[in-house]
Amino acid sequence: MDGGDGSSQNGHNQTPPAKITKFRNVVSINNDSDEDIIITSNEANLSSSVRRRVQISNEKIQTGSLNILSAKYESLDYDTCENYLLLDEERKKGYKFIVQKSIARWFVFLLIGMLTAIIACIIDISVEELSRMKYRSLSKSVDEYVTQGKLYIPYGLWVAYNVVPVFIGAILVAYVEPIAAGSGIPQVKCYLNGVKIPRVVRIKTLFVKSVGVICSVVGGLAGGKEGPMIHCGAVVAAGMSQGKSTTFRKDFNIFRYFREDHEKRDFVSGGAAAGVSAAFGAPVGGVLFSLEEGTSFWNQSLTWRTFFASVVSTFTLNVILSTYHGVPGNLSYPGLLNLGKFDSFNYEFFELPIFLIMGAMGGFFGALWNHINFKITVFRMRYIRPRWLKVVEAILVAAVSATVGFLMMFILNDCKPLGQGPTKYPTQLYCLDGQYNVLASIWFQTPEASVRSLFHDPPNTHDALPLISFVVIYFFLAAWTFGMSTSNGLFIPTLLTGAAWGRLVSITLYYIFPNVALVHPGKYALIGAAAQLGGVVRMTLSLTVIIMETTGNITFALPLIITLIAAKWTGDFFNEGIYDTLIQLSGVPFLPWEPPPLVHNIYASEVMSHPVITLKCVENVGHIVELLRLTSYNGFPVVDPPLSDQSEVTTYGRIRGLILRSQLIVILQKKIFNETSDDWDRIKASIFRNEYPRYPNIDNVQISEEEKTFSVDLRPFMNPSPYTVLHSASLPRMFRLFRALGLRHLPIVNDINEVVGMVTRKDLARYRVWRYRGRIGVEELLISKDI
Amino acid sequence: MDGGDGSSQNGHNQTPPAKITKFRNVVSINNDSDEDIIITSNEANLSSSVRRRVQISNEKIQTGSLNILSAKYESLDYDTCENYLLLDEERKKGYKFIVQKSIARWFVFLLIGMLTAIIACIIDISVEELSRMKYRSLSKSVDEYVTQGKLYIPYGLWVAYNVVPVFIGAILVAYVEPIAAGSGIPQVKCYLNGVKIPRVVRIKTLFVKSVGVICSVVGGLAGGKEGPMIHCGAVVAAGMSQGKSTTFRKDFNIFRYFREDHEKRDFVSGGAAAGVSAAFGAPVGGVLFSLEEGTSFWNQSLTWRTFFASVVSTFTLNVILSTYHGVPGNLSYPGLLNLGKFDSFNYEFFELPIFLIMGAMGGFFGALWNHINFKITVFRMRYIRPRWLKVVEAILVAAVSATVGFLMMFILNDCKPLGQGPTKYPTQLYCLDGQYNVLASIWFQTPEASVRSLFHDPPNTHDALPLISFVVIYFFLAAWTFGMSTSNGLFIPTLLTGAAWGRLVSITLYYIFPNVALVHPGKYALIGAAAQLGGVVRMTLSLTVIIMETTGNITFALPLIITLIAAKWTGDFFNEGIYDTLIQLSGVPFLPWEPPPLVHNIYASEVMSHPVITLKCVENVGHIVELLRLTSYNGFPVVDPPLSDQSEVTTYGRIRGLILRSQLIVILQKKIFNETSDDWDRIKASIFRNEYPRYPNIDNVQISEEEKTFSVDLRPFMNPSPYTVLHSASLPRMFRLFRALGLRHLPIVNDINEVVGMVTRKDLARYRVWRYRGRIGVEELLISKDI
Repeated sequence: MDGGDGSSQNGHNQTPPAKITKFRNVVSINNDSDEDIIITSNEANLSSSVRRRVQISNEKIQTGSLNILSAKYESLDYDTCENYLLLDEERKKGYKFIVQKSIARWFVFLLIGMLTAIIACIIDISVEELSRMKYRSLSKSVDEYVTQGKLYIPYGLWVAYNVVPVFIGAILVAYVEPIAAGSGIPQVKCYLNGVKIPRVVRIKTLFVKSVGVICSVVGGLAGGKEGPMIHCGAVVAAGMSQGKSTTFRKDFNIFRYFREDHEKRDFVSGGAAAGVSAAFGAPVGGVLFSLEEGTSFWNQSLTWRTFFASVVSTFTLNVILSTYHGVPGNLSYPGLLNLGKFDSFNYEFFELPIFLIMGAMGGFFGALWNHINFKITVFRMRYIRPRWLKVVEAILVAAVSATVGFLMMFILNDCKPLGQGPTKYPTQLYCLDGQYNVLASIWFQTPEASVRSLFHDPPNTHDALPLISFVVIYFFLAAWTFGMSTSNGLFIPTLLTGAAWGRLVSITLYYIFPNVALVHPGKYALIGAAAQLGGVVRMTLSLTVIIMETTGNITFALPLIITLIAAKWTGDFFNEGIYDTLIQLSGVPFLPWEPPPLVHNIYASEVMSHPVITLKCVENVGHIVELLRLTSYNGFPVVDPPLSDQSEVTTYGRIRGLILRSQLIVILQKKIFNETSDDWDRIKASIFRNEYPRYPNIDNVQISEEEKTFSVDLRPFMNPSPYTVLHSASLPRMFRLFRALGLRHLPIVNDINEVVGMVTRKDLARYRVWRYRGRIGVEELLISKDI
Repeated sequence: MDGGDGSSQNGHNQTPPAKITKFRNVVSINNDSDEDIIITSNEANLSSSVRRRVQISNEKIQTGSLNILSAKYESLDYDTCENYLLLDEERKKGYKFIVQKSIARWFVFLLIGMLTAIIACIIDISVEELSRMKYRSLSKSVDEYVTQGKLYIPYGLWVAYNVVPVFIGAILVAYVEPIAAGSGIPQVKCYLNGVKIPRVVRIKTLFVKSVGVICSVVGGLAGGKEGPMIHCGAVVAAGMSQGKSTTFRKDFNIFRYFREDHEKRDFVSGGAAAGVSAAFGAPVGGVLFSLEEGTSFWNQSLTWRTFFASVVSTFTLNVILSTYHGVPGNLSYPGLLNLGKFDSFNYEFFELPIFLIMGAMGGFFGALWNHINFKITVFRMRYIRPRWLKVVEAILVAAVSATVGFLMMFILNDCKPLGQGPTKYPTQLYCLDGQYNVLASIWFQTPEASVRSLFHDPPNTHDALPLISFVVIYFFLAAWTFGMSTSNGLFIPTLLTGAAWGRLVSITLYYIFPNVALVHPGKYALIGAAAQLGGVVRMTLSLTVIIMETTGNITFALPLIITLIAAKWTGDFFNEGIYDTLIQLSGVPFLPWEPPPLVHNIYASEVMSHPVITLKCVENVGHIVELLRLTSYNGFPVVDPPLSDQSEVTTYGRIRGLILRSQLIVILQKKIFNETSDDWDRIKASIFRNEYPRYPNIDNVQISEEEKTFSVDLRPFMNPSPYTVLHSASLPRMFRLFRALGLRHLPIVNDINEVVGMVTRKDLARYRVWRYRGRIGVEELLISKDI
C-alpha cells in the first residue's frame, strides 16, 4: 500500500483491468509533492491516429514552456460531501435552515456589491485627485520653462512623478504580495475554473492590489484599473462570505455555513461580476463576464444573485460618484470607465465590411501583442527573478514612459488652435500663441481620459503622423508594462492603442473616399478599440455587452459584434488569448469547456494514478498519522478490506467512500476515536467548517503513542457515495463528469467496484490537441513541481 | 425478469441494497406504457422531517392536478454513446472530420439565423398589411355610419373581421397540429430541458404556427407574435440541422453527422435565441433567454454560435424590414417588436422606490393573471375537449374582443383634440369636429401599436377612467385568450396591460404630487409593462436585456432591474411563472436547476425502478424481439450473466454497458447477427443516425423464425461505460449527475457492480418541496399515463 510500489498484483477480480499491465514505465517525479503526480511514459501502440507524449527527462524543465502543468495546484471541492453529519444537520435544522441560508446568501451578495463599489470609488477618486495634481503641475512647469529653454526641468519632474508612485506600488507587490501583480483576471479565471490558487482571495492581496493600482495609474504606466477591480471584487466576495479574516485573526461568527469551497466559489463569481459592473458601469456585462470567462456552472439562481450584486454595485457607485462630481442623484452616471455618450453615432450598410476588416486587423494586432507580451513574460520568468530587480524594472518602465511621451511632444510639434478640442490643461510648448500641443494633451492625462479624447475629439484634431508614432510607441509600451510587478490591467492601454489606429483608419478612408461624409472619426476609434481589445482578450459576448453598456449605445451592437467576432477568429488563427496564454505559462491545470477531440481511445486505466492508497472503514489511528506524514495525497478512498476467500493477497478493496486529508486531520485533532469519544452530540458538520480554509498541518497535530493504538470509524465522515467510473471509461467521459460536477477526486474502479486508481484534475488537463508542422494529434503535457 | 414482478430475491451480493426490502407495496399503473412507471406507495418511517406522498388510487386522476407527472414523455439523449462504431469513425476520419463538423456547425447556425429572420419578416409584413386593410376599413365604416346611427354595421364588420381569420387559425391548430397552440415557449423550454415533446420541432408545426399567428394577430385577439417566433426559430433550427424533412420525405444527404439528440438540441437552443433576436431585435437578449429559460448546458463555444445566429437573425431582419419600410440600409431598425425610442427618458433618485412598488404590483397582478389563466386552462382540459368546441371557443373570444372594444369606445366617449396623439386612423365617432376618440385609436390597431402609443403618447392623452376600464377588460381578455387553440403569445397583451396601468400610476402620482414635474408618463408605462411581464413570466436577466435592447435605452437598466426583481419576488410568493405552471399542468417531468432540498435521505434504492430487464453481451435474437414486443422500456443494461458459483439463482448481472431500444431495432432491421453478418465494414455509426429520429416500431421489423435462433453481439453497439451510481447514492447526487450530463438512463448498481435498478428522468422529477398549511416537506408526485 505504499506510494512508490507499482508492481501490485491483481489476482482477485474476474475481469482484470486490462490496460493497467500495459504500462511499461511508471516514473514519478518529485514524489514528495502535493498530490498524485505519477507520470506514465507509455508509448503503447494504441489505435490512436497520432499521439505525441512529451519526453520525460530528469533535467530541469525549461522556463516558459507551454507544455508543462505545475504539480502545486489543487482543485476546489465543488461536490458536496453528503456524509452522516450533513444528513444530521439537515434533519435537525430542517427547512428553516435552508430559508435562512438563502436569505443570508442574498444579503451577502448585497454586501459584496456595495463594498466592491466603495473600493472602486476610493480607487477612482484617489487616481483622479492625484492625477489632476500631477498633470496640472507638469503642464504649468512646461509652460514656465519652455521659454527659458530649460525643458529638462519639466522632464525631470515628469520622471520623478512617474517613478515615485510606481516605486511604492512595485515594492508593495514585489515584497508584500506578489500574487497582486498584473490584472488578476487570469487568477480569478483559474479560481472560478476550480483551481485553488494560493493567497488569491486574501485581504492582504486586496490591500496591495488597491494601493498598487492607484500607484500604477498615477505613475503614468500604460495600464488600467479595470482588471484589478475585478480581482478586488473577487476578494471582497471571498472575504464577506466567510465572515472571518484569517489575516486579521478575526472571526465574526457569522455565515459559518458558507465556509466550504462550493459556497465560496459561488460568491467569488458574484464578486467578479460586481467588479466588472463597478469598473465599466455594466451590470449585464458583469454577469456575462462571470459566465463567459469564469464560472463553470450555470445555475439560474446563482445567476440571479450575481446579477443582483452587479446591480447593487453599479447603483452604489453611481450614488457615490455622482455626489463626488457634484451632481447627486444623477444615477445614470457610468462606472469607473467613462467613455462618454455616443448618442449621435449611426452607421451605414457599406461600413459593415470596413468594420469586418478592422476586426480582422484587431485580431492580428492583438495576436502580435500577445506574442510580444508572451516573450517578455518568459524573459521575466527566466531572468528577472530577484525582487529588487522587479522593482528596478518597474521604475525603468515608468521612466521610459515619461521619456517617450516627452520626446514625442517635443519632436512632433503637433499644434492645433485652442478651443477646438476638449483638453483640460492645454500646453503651448513650441506652438504659436492661441494654439496648443495636441500630443501634450494626450500624454498629460490618464490613459482613460485619452481614450475619451480619441473617441470624442472633433474631426481633424489628430494628424496621421503623430497618431502613427503614438500607436507604435504605446503598443510596445503596453506590451512591456503588462505582467510587470505592478498592479495594472490591460483594458485601457489596449483600448487606447485601438482607438488611435481606429482614427488612423478614418483618416485613411477620408483620403481614399473624400466625397463620402463619414459621420465621425470617433466611431472608427470605437471600432478600432473594440477590435484591438477583442484581439487581445478574445472575449465576444461579454465584451460586446460591456462596450455597449459603457458607451450607452445599443444601435451600435451589430457593428461591435461583427468586429469582435472577426477579431476573435483572426486572433485564434495565430495564438490564444492573453489570459489563456498566461494561465498555460503558469502551468495551472485549467479545464477547458470540452474534452479535447480524438481522445475517445484513451481510457481511465491509462490516465489514472495507481496504485492508490486506501483506508479501511475502521482504521488504526497510527496508520492514518503515518499515511498523512509520508504521503501528500489529499483524498483517500475508504474500502472494505479485500476478500479473504481469494487465494492471492491484493491491495484492492471494494469502495465504500472517500475521505479528504483535511477531514482526517480534523478527526485526529479533535480526537474522535472509538476508544475515547462517545459524545456524538458534539460532533457536528460545523467542526469541519470551523477550520476551513486553512487546515493545520499533520505535523502540528499532537497524537500520543497510546492514541496511535486507537481506532477511528471513518464512515460518519466520509463521502459515502463518491462518483466513480470504471477503468474502461474513456477520457471524454471522465472529463465531462469531472468538469460538470466540479470534482476533485475521481476514484477508478474495476468490474467488481474495487478501487484501482484515482484521477484528479491534472490527469485530465494534460491532454491537449497538438498541431505541429501540419500534423495534428493529441499531446500529453508533463507534470512538474519545478514551476 | 418481468416488469410487474417485485419479489425478486437478492441473495448474491455481500451487502444487499438495504432499502429495497423496505418497500411494502409496489404498484404499477398502466404497465403497458412507455417506460418504467412503477410507483411506490412506501410510507416507510424514514428519518425525514415531513414527507408526503400522493395517495395512490385506482380512480381516474383528476384533470388539472399539479401533482402528476405524465408517463408519456421521454428524455433526449445528451450523453454520447461511445461505442466501437464511434471510435472506429473517429480513428478513420481523424481531425479533419472534426474541423469539417465544426465549420458545418457554424454554417448551420448562419442558416438558422437567416431563415428565422425571413420567417419573422413574412409574419410581420403579413400582419402589418392585413391589419392596415382591416383597421382602415373599420375606421372608415365607423365614420360613415355613426352619423346615420347605424353603428351595428361597423360592429358587425368588426366581428366578421375578427372571426374569419381566427376561424382559419383555430381550424389549423385544432385539426392539423394541436401542438402549435399557444406561444410554444413552454414546449421549447421542455425540449431544451431534455424532454422529448412529440412533434414540437416538425415542419408541419412551423407551418401551422406561422399561419396561425398571422391569423390570431390579424383577428384582433389579445395575443402577440413574439412567443410563436421563438418556437418558429426552434423548429427552423431542428429542421436545418438535420438536412432532411420527414414530413416531406426528403433527405438532402447533408449534415448527416448532426443526426443525434445531442447536436439537435444544441441547434435548437441557437434557434430559440435567433427567434428572440428576430422578435425583439435583441441579439444579446436572445442568447440570455436561451440560457436562462432553456439550455441546461452552458458551454462557451455553443454560446458563441448561439450569439452568432442571433446576430445574423437581427441583421437579416434589419435588411429586409428596412427595405420594406422604404429606408434600405438603415440597419438600426429594431425587431418585430418596435417600441420606439426612449432617448429622452431619465430618472431621479426618489423615483426608485416608486419603481420598486410598481414592480411589486406587477408581481401581484401577474400572479393573479397566472392564477386566472391556470383555472381557465384546467376548465379547458376538462370540458373543452372536442376539436370543434375548441374552434367555437376561439370564435367566441374573437367576437367578444370586438364587442368589448366596441362597447368601450361607444360608452366611454373619450375625446381629445386631433393632432395631439400619433394615431394612424383617427376616428371621430361621437366626438366634436376636430377631435378624435382616443379609445377607438387604441382598439383600431394591433396590440403592438397600442403599446407603442401608451409609451409615447404625450401626457394627458389618456384619462383615468378609460384607462381603468381598459386595464380591467384587457387583463381578463388576455387571460382568457392565452392557451386557446390558436397560435399566439402573451408578451404583447401583458405589456399592454402593464403599460396601461403604468400610465394610471403616473396620473395618480400627478394628483398626489402636482408640484413635481414627472418627466413623462411613458416612462411609467414602460415600468408598468416591465412589471406586469415580469410578474407573469418571472424572468429577470433576459427580460431586462430584452427590454433594454427593444427600447434602445441603457440608462434605464437600473430601474428595469429593480422593477423586475421586485415583480419576480412578489409573484413567486403567490405562485409560479405561467410557463412553469403550464409545464406542471401538462405533467412534463421537467428537471429544475437544483435538486429539491431536504432529500439527502432519499436513496437510489427507493427511487429506482426495479427489477430491471437486462440483456447478455451476446444475446439470442428471439429473446430480444420478445423483450421489445412485451415491454416498452427504452434502455437495457447489458450484463455479464450472474455468477454460477453462487448457491441462489439471481436475476442480477454485472454491468457491461447500456443499449437503447432504438439501437436494438436498427440491429434487428439490418440483421447484424453473428451467424449471418461478417461484413463488418458496412456497419458504421451512420446506419444508426440514418434512422434518426423516427425509428421503426418493433412490429414493423421482419424477423423470421430461423433468425430468432441466431445470436447478436451487443458489445460493439452498446455504450460500454455508462455512468452508474451505487444503490446507496442520495437523490441530490443522482439528480446532479443526471442534470449536469443530460442523461436518459442511470443504471443503479450494488456493491459488486450488478445492476439492481434503473433511474430515469421521471424518478427524479417527481420529488418536490411541498408547502401546505404551514408545514413544509418533500412531496412525491404520481406518475400517470392518463394525462
